[in-house]
Amino acid sequence: MYTLYGMPDSGNCYKPRLAAEQLGVAYRWVEVSDTRAPGFLAKNPNGKVPVLELDDGSCLPESNAILWYLAEGTPLAASDRLGRARMLQWMFFEQYSHEPYVAVARSIVRHTPPDSPRRAELPRLQERGHQALRVMEQHLAREPYCVGATYSIADIALYAYTHCAEDGGIALAPYPAVRAWLERVRAQPRFVPMR
Amino acid sequence: MYTLYGMPDSGNCYKPRLAAEQLGVAYRWVEVSDTRAPGFLAKNPNGKVPVLELDDGSCLPESNAILWYLAEGTPLAASDRLGRARMLQWMFFEQYSHEPYVAVARSIVRHTPPDSPRRAELPRLQERGHQALRVMEQHLAREPYCVGATYSIADIALYAYTHCAEDGGIALAPYPAVRAWLERVRAQPRFVPMR
Repeated sequence: MYTLYGMPDSGNCYKPRLAAEQLGVAYRWVEVSDTRAPGFLAKNPNGKVPVLELDDGSCLPESNAILWYLAEGTPLAASDRLGRARMLQWMFFEQYSHEPYVAVARSIVRHTPPDSPRRAELPRLQERGHQALRVMEQHLAREPYCVGATYSIADIALYAYTHCAEDGGIALAPYPAVRAWLERVRAQPRFVPMR
Repeated sequence: MYTLYGMPDSGNCYKPRLAAEQLGVAYRWVEVSDTRAPGFLAKNPNGKVPVLELDDGSCLPESNAILWYLAEGTPLAASDRLGRARMLQWMFFEQYSHEPYVAVARSIVRHTPPDSPRRAELPRLQERGHQALRVMEQHLAREPYCVGATYSIADIALYAYTHCAEDGGIALAPYPAVRAWLERVRAQPRFVPMR
């Protein structure tokens, strides 16, 4: 059985949980409190959750690589070459142009005191978060999912922090197509919420 | 024939060029001067190079998604499930934990005036860049390539900005395993330099 090391409030850790639930893949959840502890660094020298541990003890970090590993060859992954590349297009977009703003703004709002100097970063993070949401809005106004007509791990990757963007002060009201897509994701079989 | 839209000094644009050269894939190179121009935004609403245009006019952005598209089913991609996930592990590491520091430090040093306020970001970017290089050093001291014994698109993704990290003031001297790996990459058949 897989072991998934993660933190409960992390969208990145929610991604593989949601995929595993929807695929009916059994796993054990282990909560990590310190990603810089030597025991955890042995599993991921980059010191980040989530990590998926396989039966042989080998460890796979990076939320979107774990999604790929779990979903390859299942209905959660595109079955054609361009579809697979388009899933990755959106998953790299998520990690480079979306998560560093949407998730980081949320983390600062939720986990720093009101007088933290980090709060000075919020306006810039929120503006970049809105840029990412505008790109999603444009796409989702034309297509029901990230990759055409079919729900996939690309949708899971982007759902993880989009659905809770308002936690970081990034309003979703201007994005009706994004909000309709969030509802379509929530309506998927075996959907589980982040918390 | 593919068309690759890019900028000559961009490591992200070098990645698909290097892969295409090594795979013997024909492509036309089109230099982009303004990624916010309407004509380019029609190709990538996220306003970033590179973009790969296919014969039917459809456009694929995100350097590492393009690498995947070009390399799937070739010797530049792992042929087993865990190997493919490990390639993606390193490619997501590159986009999240390496490029935003190593490439951005280089860009600031090369493209801002000496009195630019952006230079105040350099110490933090360089420190985070060194963190990424330490993770690579630990891995490459044990394995010849990102994914075991075989050169792959994960090595291309990480070579792109690692080989020129010193442009951004990030010394490679402390990383002998990384430097030996850079040499192994340069020794690959049909290797072409960035510039």
